[in-house]
Amino acid sequence: MNPLFYTYGDDAPIAAPATPLAECALAIIRISGKDAIPLVASVFSRPRKLLEAPGNTVVYGWILDENEKIDEVLVSVYRGPRSYTGEDGADISCHGGIATVRGVMRVLHRAGFRDSLPGEFTFRAFMQGKLDLTRAESVMELVSAKTDQARSHAVNRLAGSLEQEVRGIKDQLVQVLAGTEIFLDYSEDEFRGNPGTLDDEAAGRLPDRALAEEVLARLRVLAGSYRMERLYHEGALVVIAGRPNAGKSSLFNRLLKEERSIVTDIPGTTRDWIEGWISIEGIPIRLVDTAGIREDAVGGMLEKLGMERSRALLRDADLVLYMVDATCSADTRDEESVRFFSALLWEDPKRILPVKNKLDLCPPGTMTEEESFFFQYAPFQGISAKTGWGIAELAVAIAGRLTRERGGAEARRSSSGIGTERQKGLIHGAIQSLEDALTLADQGEPLDLIAPLLREGVQALGTITGEVSTADMLEVMFSRFCVGK
Amino acid sequence: MNPLFYTYGDDAPIAAPATPLAECALAIIRISGKDAIPLVASVFSRPRKLLEAPGNTVVYGWILDENEKIDEVLVSVYRGPRSYTGEDGADISCHGGIATVRGVMRVLHRAGFRDSLPGEFTFRAFMQGKLDLTRAESVMELVSAKTDQARSHAVNRLAGSLEQEVRGIKDQLVQVLAGTEIFLDYSEDEFRGNPGTLDDEAAGRLPDRALAEEVLARLRVLAGSYRMERLYHEGALVVIAGRPNAGKSSLFNRLLKEERSIVTDIPGTTRDWIEGWISIEGIPIRLVDTAGIREDAVGGMLEKLGMERSRALLRDADLVLYMVDATCSADTRDEESVRFFSALLWEDPKRILPVKNKLDLCPPGTMTEEESFFFQYAPFQGISAKTGWGIAELAVAIAGRLTRERGGAEARRSSSGIGTERQKGLIHGAIQSLEDALTLADQGEPLDLIAPLLREGVQALGTITGEVSTADMLEVMFSRFCVGK
Repeated sequence: MNPLFYTYGDDAPIAAPATPLAECALAIIRISGKDAIPLVASVFSRPRKLLEAPGNTVVYGWILDENEKIDEVLVSVYRGPRSYTGEDGADISCHGGIATVRGVMRVLHRAGFRDSLPGEFTFRAFMQGKLDLTRAESVMELVSAKTDQARSHAVNRLAGSLEQEVRGIKDQLVQVLAGTEIFLDYSEDEFRGNPGTLDDEAAGRLPDRALAEEVLARLRVLAGSYRMERLYHEGALVVIAGRPNAGKSSLFNRLLKEERSIVTDIPGTTRDWIEGWISIEGIPIRLVDTAGIREDAVGGMLEKLGMERSRALLRDADLVLYMVDATCSADTRDEESVRFFSALLWEDPKRILPVKNKLDLCPPGTMTEEESFFFQYAPFQGISAKTGWGIAELAVAIAGRLTRERGGAEARRSSSGIGTERQKGLIHGAIQSLEDALTLADQGEPLDLIAPLLREGVQALGTITGEVSTADMLEVMFSRFCVGK
Repeated sequence: MNPLFYTYGDDAPIAAPATPLAECALAIIRISGKDAIPLVASVFSRPRKLLEAPGNTVVYGWILDENEKIDEVLVSVYRGPRSYTGEDGADISCHGGIATVRGVMRVLHRAGFRDSLPGEFTFRAFMQGKLDLTRAESVMELVSAKTDQARSHAVNRLAGSLEQEVRGIKDQLVQVLAGTEIFLDYSEDEFRGNPGTLDDEAAGRLPDRALAEEVLARLRVLAGSYRMERLYHEGALVVIAGRPNAGKSSLFNRLLKEERSIVTDIPGTTRDWIEGWISIEGIPIRLVDTAGIREDAVGGMLEKLGMERSRALLRDADLVLYMVDATCSADTRDEESVRFFSALLWEDPKRILPVKNKLDLCPPGTMTEEESFFFQYAPFQGISAKTGWGIAELAVAIAGRLTRERGGAEARRSSSGIGTERQKGLIHGAIQSLEDALTLADQGEPLDLIAPLLREGVQALGTITGEVSTADMLEVMFSRFCVGK
């Protein structure tokens, strides 16, 4: 039963575990499709009860394999069109645990269900008109949200904020397009043989030009929301670096203790550096302490390997907290490291936030050579990792740095941003078409060259919500979903 | 809100995620207790619908925090006593994902729910008389079952097989006890002043002695089932060992490919050896390849560390597959390893299964010095890890070795075994009491010394099902459950 042999778009009975295969209290197996209820009834201890169950009711019983009891379950019955997929379906709530879920899935396979493809339940919901594509995508965003801020943005899209915004913008663009096309028709019918009038009216003057400019402005706001949305959704990599004994591990532990740490299922323990996820002002931050990489290493070869990994991390980082020991006088022991950071700073100064530690031990005002070098480019954030002094201010500075480049406070407050790469590509496509249209209008080109560009823009916006779609596009999109969704 | 401040046994409204905190399609948050439905309604977009919902129906809506939408959910409403706990309750099906579950839990806390203690839902079900203790325990066994065999045994207990067996045995023992006590009463009332008759009847002759013997036999069968049940439930550690290049990794890969491998959530990737779970005849087997431990090591110190770990594994193993290269002539390169295995073999020969690899390259009948040493104690299992020859037979031999010591084929077929350490302790207690009672009877001791022992036995059996229980015992038992169950 290779999933590659199935395709989206049929109404075959499908089944999938919607919860992870793990030891836990409950597991849900989701089913949907043609004859879904009768097929479950055929392996159920109380088949008549299930067949007669109205939608949105729960039936208690046992899943049976011939006469062997597989598990005691609750079946929540849904009747189309009042269901997630719009088809008949059910959620089978069985005991959590690997063998239980496998046992029930095995029986469902024998009964005639096939494994669902990734996102196939949501795909069917879209095909049945239960939700548009922006809402469908928000379902997957919700699942992978790490902080409450990310959840909140995804929920807004699920509730239709992006769909409404895109439809609103599209309606305006359709109005611009309609005005243009009516003018084209009108001019062809009525002004034939009077080319002078046609040229005056049709060239260099776009009907509803002000509206077109408004559409462009709204599209740009949406496009600008993407980087901020990604920041809240995927988070940022913040790396703590600096000389040995500058207090990197102390700062790491302090931030993990004082800022809200996030439980994630992203494995972090198998790496040879220490990392943890924290939430600063709703931004999920993957905080990495590079201390362990070099200092714990044993031999020369391992140290070299550690340095390479450390540098790769620094290159990928969204922000590097470069730590300096305020009590330490300038020296050249770690020349190589200073050279490396200088290069990094030269190349991308916005990615380095210098931090001056151990201020509790140090009279203010002293500055080492290393500090004065960095101080040319960015002010130090003064802290004491030991006492906690300055940590709250450092957190604010981290959030500020990460959001400043992404549109700042205004973009953070926006409630209808775009959430996916696909949406971003289509918004940029619409912007490009509209910009081209306005440029042609400025150059005095005729409306019949401009109208197709406007039509492209409308098409792109329709594709975002799924009014315009192709089977290929839908398959690519939904195949990135998780199974059981 | 420290869980230590709560106690089992109240009817406070409780809530807990019943599925793991992970990125997945759905998550279930389970609630139960006094005012559970009105409290959920207070943070629900359609409160009246929820308040009026009959038991076993599903209500669609949004969980709200003031006016902010937290998640779109389905609430399956249960009305006591027709619910898992016997109280009013609900399963809230929300979008899977960490932030979503945390968001909904936060709102439920504000609404007045507290976090449930481990096993508290099942504890309440027991207190409401919905299930006895053997069924309650089987719920946790089901959750942690790794193979279909383990699931099947736990499901039998959930369906009441152990409860019935224990109640049946207890009824017989009560009959024995009643016969004894009636005789004591009778002799006191009627035979007073005629001590000769009393002595003749009451000493050395237990009324219903045959029934008492039958009870003892049934208890011994139950007690004997424990090791086999544990084998199917917890599985066995099987370690592949032997000289470098004997083909350890080939055998490991071959077994993982040919036998059904098990998906578990037990992390295995962080260790410095290779391991995987497979199922052989329904026995979950944690198969460890020690190859990587020594051979991949770099320096002397690491190698020594590896050898220590390797030996610790071998000491813990239920079975060691000791591999020998059939094409290799005797040599003494690995003297230390041979010495180590000799010691292991001497100490516990049943734990070593010698395997002769590369039979595809080798004329049968040749035997190295190392082989002849091992051959004194156990026949070699001949295989070719490369071609797959002999692997099925090896699997049968592994299952045979693991089950032989635990009661063999008969115990494997038994359907009403005991599943937990607690049950085992109580069964052994009942056996001890009954054995003592029969010994006293054999020694001609009077019935009034024997009756208390029979009463102890009845008490122990009643404690297994929970007819007899103390608050302390219940707390200890349920606190080993997982949260949300």
